[in-house]
Amino acid sequence: MGEAIRIIGIDPGLRRTGWGIVESLGNSLRFVGSGTVRSDDKAALATRLCQLHDGLAEILHAAMPQEAAVEQTFVNKDAVATLKLGQARGIAMLVPARAGLVVAEYAPNAVKKAVIGVGHGDKKQIHMMVKVLLPKATFDTEHAADALAIAICHAHHRQSVAYRMAALAS
Amino acid sequence: MGEAIRIIGIDPGLRRTGWGIVESLGNSLRFVGSGTVRSDDKAALATRLCQLHDGLAEILHAAMPQEAAVEQTFVNKDAVATLKLGQARGIAMLVPARAGLVVAEYAPNAVKKAVIGVGHGDKKQIHMMVKVLLPKATFDTEHAADALAIAICHAHHRQSVAYRMAALAS
Repeated sequence: MGEAIRIIGIDPGLRRTGWGIVESLGNSLRFVGSGTVRSDDKAALATRLCQLHDGLAEILHAAMPQEAAVEQTFVNKDAVATLKLGQARGIAMLVPARAGLVVAEYAPNAVKKAVIGVGHGDKKQIHMMVKVLLPKATFDTEHAADALAIAICHAHHRQSVAYRMAALAS
Repeated sequence: MGEAIRIIGIDPGLRRTGWGIVESLGNSLRFVGSGTVRSDDKAALATRLCQLHDGLAEILHAAMPQEAAVEQTFVNKDAVATLKLGQARGIAMLVPARAGLVVAEYAPNAVKKAVIGVGHGDKKQIHMMVKVLLPKATFDTEHAADALAIAICHAHHRQSVAYRMAALAS
């Protein structure tokens, strides 16, 4: 089976960016940690992006994950909200990429399918299944729980033959 | 009058991010340089964001601007395009902010007003006026020309009493 792989899942948001780290070895999953990086909503946008950057960089430095995964989020709200999310998402992808990690992206229904078995379901079901799959998991916000779900999704997908062949080819 | 201030304007885009640098001293403006940072559209998103980051960081390191300005762009296209722009914009704001620069934001009509005198007008008019205001300016793409327009806009605004008082208070 080889060695355990440490995976960080990130759920980006300008106010709150959730992160969750798991270790995957064969079919087993282990909770490592989770939390929320906050930005000061009274600060200038550029300052807030720095806060997200520094918070995530600190976690990567401390926990040393080997692979990263981010959800392919789409907001159905206005363009302003989408632009804000995009800015936070840019930082959430940049930080692990600059640290040399491959950053996988998953659609929301892929995350749901990996965690609750079907491609639809509400947040509560996802958080409940995160607790079932990672009994020792704790999370301070919904963003942290979502980030763990994304990490679990990546742990499942990276086992697939297709993923391994793509990784070998890249 | 004090010393000349070196300003970088940035026009963010995932494929092409334009940059333009001017020096402002009193009422005079001087062209320093402009160009376009490109990302490889066949690469993974995280890799492309790193390319934008590294390209902008290199320019900041070489040209050492003291202030930065980015347009408050809104796309009227789909959410996918807005999210893409947001991701690039996040990087465009992060890089100067991490380098210790204050990053000003201007609405598109503020940029037009500063450059062509009125809050509306097409790209051609803007680029023509950039050439009038900065006779020595050269630009390789429309993004670079737009970035120079944003830098010019900031040079005008930072002279205003309101701007100076806000800067003193911050």
